[in-house]
Amino acid sequence: MIIVLKPGITEAEETRVLHEIEARGYTPHVMRGVSRVVIGAIGDAQAHQSLETLASWSQVESVTRIQKRYKLVSKEGQKVRSTVKINDHVQIGGRKVQLMAGPCSVENEKQLMTVAEKVKSCGANILRGGAFKPRTSPYEFQGLGEKGLKLLAKAREATGLAIVTECLSEEHAEMVAEYADIIQIGARNAQNFQLLIAAAHTGKPILLKRGPSMLIEEWLLAGEYILSSGNPNLIFCERGIRTFETYTRNTLDLMTIPILRQETHCPIVIDPSQGCGNANLVETLCFGAVAMGADGLLIEVHPDPTRAWSDGAQQVTLEAFEKLTKNLLPFLHAAGRE
Amino acid sequence: MIIVLKPGITEAEETRVLHEIEARGYTPHVMRGVSRVVIGAIGDAQAHQSLETLASWSQVESVTRIQKRYKLVSKEGQKVRSTVKINDHVQIGGRKVQLMAGPCSVENEKQLMTVAEKVKSCGANILRGGAFKPRTSPYEFQGLGEKGLKLLAKAREATGLAIVTECLSEEHAEMVAEYADIIQIGARNAQNFQLLIAAAHTGKPILLKRGPSMLIEEWLLAGEYILSSGNPNLIFCERGIRTFETYTRNTLDLMTIPILRQETHCPIVIDPSQGCGNANLVETLCFGAVAMGADGLLIEVHPDPTRAWSDGAQQVTLEAFEKLTKNLLPFLHAAGRE
Amino acid sequence: MIIVLKPGITEAEETRVLHEIEARGYTPHVMRGVSRVVIGAIGDAQAHQSLETLASWSQVESVTRIQKRYKLVSKEGQKVRSTVKINDHVQIGGRKVQLMAGPCSVENEKQLMTVAEKVKSCGANILRGGAFKPRTSPYEFQGLGEKGLKLLAKAREATGLAIVTECLSEEHAEMVAEYADIIQIGARNAQNFQLLIAAAHTGKPILLKRGPSMLIEEWLLAGEYILSSGNPNLIFCERGIRTFETYTRNTLDLMTIPILRQETHCPIVIDPSQGCGNANLVETLCFGAVAMGADGLLIEVHPDPTRAWSDGAQQVTLEAFEKLTKNLLPFLHAAGRE
Amino acid sequence: MIIVLKPGITEAEETRVLHEIEARGYTPHVMRGVSRVVIGAIGDAQAHQSLETLASWSQVESVTRIQKRYKLVSKEGQKVRSTVKINDHVQIGGRKVQLMAGPCSVENEKQLMTVAEKVKSCGANILRGGAFKPRTSPYEFQGLGEKGLKLLAKAREATGLAIVTECLSEEHAEMVAEYADIIQIGARNAQNFQLLIAAAHTGKPILLKRGPSMLIEEWLLAGEYILSSGNPNLIFCERGIRTFETYTRNTLDLMTIPILRQETHCPIVIDPSQGCGNANLVETLCFGAVAMGADGLLIEVHPDPTRAWSDGAQQVTLEAFEKLTKNLLPFLHAAGRE
Repeated sequence: MIIVLKPGITEAEETRVLHEIEARGYTPHVMRGVSRVVIGAIGDAQAHQSLETLASWSQVESVTRIQKRYKLVSKEGQKVRSTVKINDHVQIGGRKVQLMAGPCSVENEKQLMTVAEKVKSCGANILRGGAFKPRTSPYEFQGLGEKGLKLLAKAREATGLAIVTECLSEEHAEMVAEYADIIQIGARNAQNFQLLIAAAHTGKPILLKRGPSMLIEEWLLAGEYILSSGNPNLIFCERGIRTFETYTRNTLDLMTIPILRQETHCPIVIDPSQGCGNANLVETLCFGAVAMGADGLLIEVHPDPTRAWSDGAQQVTLEAFEKLTKNLLPFLHAAGRE
Repeated sequence: MIIVLKPGITEAEETRVLHEIEARGYTPHVMRGVSRVVIGAIGDAQAHQSLETLASWSQVESVTRIQKRYKLVSKEGQKVRSTVKINDHVQIGGRKVQLMAGPCSVENEKQLMTVAEKVKSCGANILRGGAFKPRTSPYEFQGLGEKGLKLLAKAREATGLAIVTECLSEEHAEMVAEYADIIQIGARNAQNFQLLIAAAHTGKPILLKRGPSMLIEEWLLAGEYILSSGNPNLIFCERGIRTFETYTRNTLDLMTIPILRQETHCPIVIDPSQGCGNANLVETLCFGAVAMGADGLLIEVHPDPTRAWSDGAQQVTLEAFEKLTKNLLPFLHAAGRE
Repeated sequence: MIIVLKPGITEAEETRVLHEIEARGYTPHVMRGVSRVVIGAIGDAQAHQSLETLASWSQVESVTRIQKRYKLVSKEGQKVRSTVKINDHVQIGGRKVQLMAGPCSVENEKQLMTVAEKVKSCGANILRGGAFKPRTSPYEFQGLGEKGLKLLAKAREATGLAIVTECLSEEHAEMVAEYADIIQIGARNAQNFQLLIAAAHTGKPILLKRGPSMLIEEWLLAGEYILSSGNPNLIFCERGIRTFETYTRNTLDLMTIPILRQETHCPIVIDPSQGCGNANLVETLCFGAVAMGADGLLIEVHPDPTRAWSDGAQQVTLEAFEKLTKNLLPFLHAAGRE
Repeated sequence: MIIVLKPGITEAEETRVLHEIEARGYTPHVMRGVSRVVIGAIGDAQAHQSLETLASWSQVESVTRIQKRYKLVSKEGQKVRSTVKINDHVQIGGRKVQLMAGPCSVENEKQLMTVAEKVKSCGANILRGGAFKPRTSPYEFQGLGEKGLKLLAKAREATGLAIVTECLSEEHAEMVAEYADIIQIGARNAQNFQLLIAAAHTGKPILLKRGPSMLIEEWLLAGEYILSSGNPNLIFCERGIRTFETYTRNTLDLMTIPILRQETHCPIVIDPSQGCGNANLVETLCFGAVAMGADGLLIEVHPDPTRAWSDGAQQVTLEAFEKLTKNLLPFLHAAGRE
């Protein structure tokens, strides 16, 4: 930790800071600069009590951490990139860019099967579909619940596709785990730590979306909750952040791909559908995501988006999805991926 | 709903939109403007299926809602401002501005009792204190849990202060309700709808913080989850939003006070401590909040902030709190409040 | 400057950093921490070449500045708060909170005189009015130009009010200075450094608005351009920042009042009209601004806002302004101001 | 324009709105909805006085524009995508993705020539280099001025590369135009309309960066200033927006590529160097930009970034640039570009 003292304080005030640093188990190291005194506090910030509260001392200007706050998700801890095994045939984080596609909400068997068969025939290995839907308004469709999970399981049986679906509630974690191959934690719950822990304890792979205003550091630390709960099967998913721009629903932050590849060994997946909220833009965002090194794409597909029960504007049609997967091929090859 | 068609579409395409509007139970009303055709869809958007998915039609440029999405929290539904009764002596939303003060985290009995007695003697009627703490990192202090709740109850017994404390988990809602007079929903969980519903079902007053990137409309709709769950005792609490500015931890949005007074009948409380993350600024923020019409202040107070187990930098000392409450008086009088 | 090295680098790589630090005139000071090596570079960052480019070295993790980047505007340099003298009777930064009021745009003599007389009778000492208007679209009213300046001068002659008006162009700085008592630099031009310098060189007091996405540090540094150009008469004006919230046009950041009072000796003025873009909210924002220590208020007033040539929605009527000034009195007294 | 009236207003209040709409030259069209009255005002908002000020009427809830505010830059006006001719060999907006590369600041002849020759040999047709530098602090290097322009012209003579360089001041527009092939308007000046007009009047192609908090609509309208000043040679350049994220200097918004291709016929260029502020990320951002349809890349290259006079952390080395151009090839082919 680096502690900067305010200019013009007395020697006695400085001494009190030094004693406090020692009292908390660190070795202080004083540097007298031109306008300020700077103290390096040497010691393991993960083993000792944090020095960050020193920032509230009247003689202290700032306290800065040197060590990174995350370790299990960090590349410092594990240098080799992880792959997350989904089932016997599918893993995320390897050479193959995994397509995860399906409707925003599971609406009925016919809708789901139509989409499942189509996305499979286009090369997807994973079917997405919401059974529990977090909705901004209590008056909007909240999902079919367990009935939706059963339909997803039926689609898996029929097609062999793995299933990714959202869990909204600690109380549902076990139930969702019974039906799903990957448990999705949605953006609104990305810092609902009790849910993270409950989901992690099921042992299933976790797809952790970035909250709309989460710093990358906070997102990595939310992932740290998963790994420190004993579940190493973590996939990060960028889905757009909230900015001042209103042309799109969110601002998809594709820079997170190279940044997460620098900071963590866990795979990174992109959700272009939520990322922009606009079906017209989805294909182009997929091109960018693949070129920049994404390990997977999470795409909303609906047989008739104009009549979807949720988020129609961002779901692509079956035809658009097929075209997208074809047009994506040259970019996969360019990126050295499958 | 207002549907704007793209320029240059065919009559057949226009007709299909009109038929769809009718099929969903609305009466279309066509206006031919200079460059575009605009359709008003007349009907109750809360009774019929939403027309928002029309935005995904290729011939549609935009769909705009006219009705507000919230109703139970809205001033259109209830014109008189609500007061929320906390106990026999205390209510929020009346002429008295309620002080809610106490430590960020409950650490031990002595710490809590010291603060409780002090804040009571300074005029506070409500004691705050975290027993369950949502922390960005899994390696940080997570609160004393039920032991902390018991200490809060003990402090209530000793001082008569009402208790406000955070609930993090649906599974704890009943337990927290046993000890607390007001259940706080924290910023990170402000759109954890399952938690909102579980907390609402306890019947206790709910203090709903604004999420760091929630639109005011989304915050009101989160409140709508409480009221539509049958619990009318809702208090909104602004605690700062996340912006590009890094000088402070958050940007406290004091404009929410007059805005919420326009939009909702529910009381509005300000949390200056989280709002800025900096004890030096808290007093001045309280002056502004009272002048602008806040119904309460939620202030973090600690006997020794420099050794606090969480968020030391934003907690004021006992002495600073006493000074603050004295300096606040002229502003309370100016605002016609107690 | 504090330089943090990446973990696991070689001694040779470390040595090269140390040599570079010395080569740039600083004394390196090495601290070996648990996971990283940290180097304090002692020396005056304003006298030597910056070390910030070291951040691009492959063995360097981060470079952090210790000294503040601003000095002339800083309270470290000048501890006493400045007052800016506008004319023989009026100064900004003293005990009196100065009202600066008038129309968004100068439209014609009658409009301007009507407003000028009214705001004077309500206690304002300074008349605002735009002659040059920066407009988002080239098709919107761009102001009357020099004709507008002449009308402002005429209003000054008739009423004795001082004049504040915006300068958009380096080429107009001298011309605006001929007519104005205070030159306003608008938010869009807050980092148009050539304009700042040209305005400063006129010697007139400068009212520097905060740009919609300027960090407080950047705003202070923009002010540093004024003072380092030899003009000490600087007034900062907060007018709202751009955030994700869309209910209001901007998010007025009232926390800047106590923050600027900590960081700079220059006065701070609040513009509630631009700050929210909504006439209904202006009065309440003024209450908050005064309670929090603003040295002045810049308020848009129009005889008939519904027919204003620009920004009608945020201008208050003459009647509303009169009421506002009356209702403001208790808050002025509470704040110990006039 | 769509005018929504507040619920519960009187017939007389409604009639006054209707009369005002007619008085301003529009035909009102009333729709009585379930909870509100909505009025469509039919007429050309670019020919008549705007109705937006009606938002300040007490009986009006909102006023929404239907027509787009921009026309000359719009695809509605010109459906064919523009190409901007730079010199006899080079155009922007065609099949070839143009590389624009060079140092952040021109420092001296040797530095500039070294970079110019290298980037030429790697396939760049355009040399970038700052002679006038807008710097956050007045104490930072402000560029070599006209001397820097002369060096750029010399580099053009020696290599045949076209020159793009920033103009900061209206007073320099003619001078910069003498030396440059493309005049760059920087992010801080993107709404400095006087500068836009002065630059446009030189007749040179204009590269218009997006301001750090400009809405896409505002950026397009800033471009409208160029075209409506009689200069059709406009190139938009995305360089990152300011968000809450601090890992990178800015958040590069690559979604602007498909969005601008939908909205405007003008070419779109990406600046990954400013976009992230971090040389390590530049290559990956280039891959994404090309895959998503950028017409050009503006890349900062320096022989020794660690000793650069400005922004060293974001400049790539000569070797890294060569590698980047090679690695970019498969993505150019995948995108069907050269």
